[in-house]
Amino acid sequence: MRIDIISVLPELMESPFRASILKRAMDKGLAEVHFHQLRDYGLGKYRQIDDEPYGGGAGMVMMIEPLDKCISELKAQRDYDEVIYLTPDGETLNQKIANTLSIKNNLIFLCGHYKGIDQRVRELHITKEISIGDYVLTGGELAACVLADSVIRLLPGVLNDEQSALTDSFQDNLLSPPIYTRPDEYKGLKVPEILLSGNQKKIEDWRHDEAVRITKEKRPDILE
Amino acid sequence: MRIDIISVLPELMESPFRASILKRAMDKGLAEVHFHQLRDYGLGKYRQIDDEPYGGGAGMVMMIEPLDKCISELKAQRDYDEVIYLTPDGETLNQKIANTLSIKNNLIFLCGHYKGIDQRVRELHITKEISIGDYVLTGGELAACVLADSVIRLLPGVLNDEQSALTDSFQDNLLSPPIYTRPDEYKGLKVPEILLSGNQKKIEDWRHDEAVRITKEKRPDILE
Repeated sequence: MRIDIISVLPELMESPFRASILKRAMDKGLAEVHFHQLRDYGLGKYRQIDDEPYGGGAGMVMMIEPLDKCISELKAQRDYDEVIYLTPDGETLNQKIANTLSIKNNLIFLCGHYKGIDQRVRELHITKEISIGDYVLTGGELAACVLADSVIRLLPGVLNDEQSALTDSFQDNLLSPPIYTRPDEYKGLKVPEILLSGNQKKIEDWRHDEAVRITKEKRPDILE
Repeated sequence: MRIDIISVLPELMESPFRASILKRAMDKGLAEVHFHQLRDYGLGKYRQIDDEPYGGGAGMVMMIEPLDKCISELKAQRDYDEVIYLTPDGETLNQKIANTLSIKNNLIFLCGHYKGIDQRVRELHITKEISIGDYVLTGGELAACVLADSVIRLLPGVLNDEQSALTDSFQDNLLSPPIYTRPDEYKGLKVPEILLSGNQKKIEDWRHDEAVRITKEKRPDILE
């Protein structure tokens, strides 16, 4: 999988891709992530990439021309499955979308900044708009990191133990059951007896019951 | 505002806090963010912080003792308004939660990793559990960055133009209307006439109508 990320602040995204699972995925050649500084496509001597909104109002708008140039240059080099704009008014990211994107080959992520991008860029190039949640961030950069992480960790061979992703929250529309590790007692707080019983059948039943109970309690909306 | 972030991978969070708005907030003294490497509280020569789950299964569990030591040490130094665990089965972050947290003084963010933390830590210390969305990430680090960004940008004095945050998506339960900037025509794509009219009243009405239309179309669930 190849992901091209277009941003005015690529330096914001350096450390997440240099650590942990994302780094491992790239070291193993399972994922390639390329950053593109939008300012390199900016206009004039000052490499302008934003301007005031037509009709007035607060905040700056990312101009169509630098974005069109950058995206067009990428598209001329290879076919992209999706050109994704990270924006709070996009489709809300969920595990199903992450699963779907994880089988694609080439993706462009466009990070909005300031008040967002000129609407015409959306009409011209964007095939999918994704929001990571109902809150506003300084820019799309953290959203791009989140989306990349949620997708890349699903690529075969990225996680050490493939079973691990399949037992995550959401993959089966259930939240995870409580988990415990040593010691079995700490400051009077004990691990449930059943988990120490060695009876694997009973343990699996208990976990499933707990997962259902917790999901009913916290997130009845995701139970089908 | 002071935020203490506990993690096994603090280096993953370096660049987001060194760029853009978060950097400005810290340079201005409006927000302080302190990272705590959980491994410094690990057990024994190898600074152990995780172990296998009781009852078997894939993935490792973060142990109670290192977490208890780290959180207790912080709590002994100052009062915290909330000790927040970033976890996919927490309450889903939204703009209202971000607004509420933005008026707090001291917050602890605990980043889960591996399969999560020993359940007893949740009972002992955690006052709030937050999920940034219905998807699974490699760890809580990116979630902590997202939460910090959504909260810190709301602190008075952080954004250049205070109006800017108030006109964001979600603050008034409406998505943003389309925005445009120069040029008024690009490759045949034109800016709506009304935005060039100079009639501020009509422009504001159009923007409100568009915001309502887009919200109805994309996110009828957030319309009250």
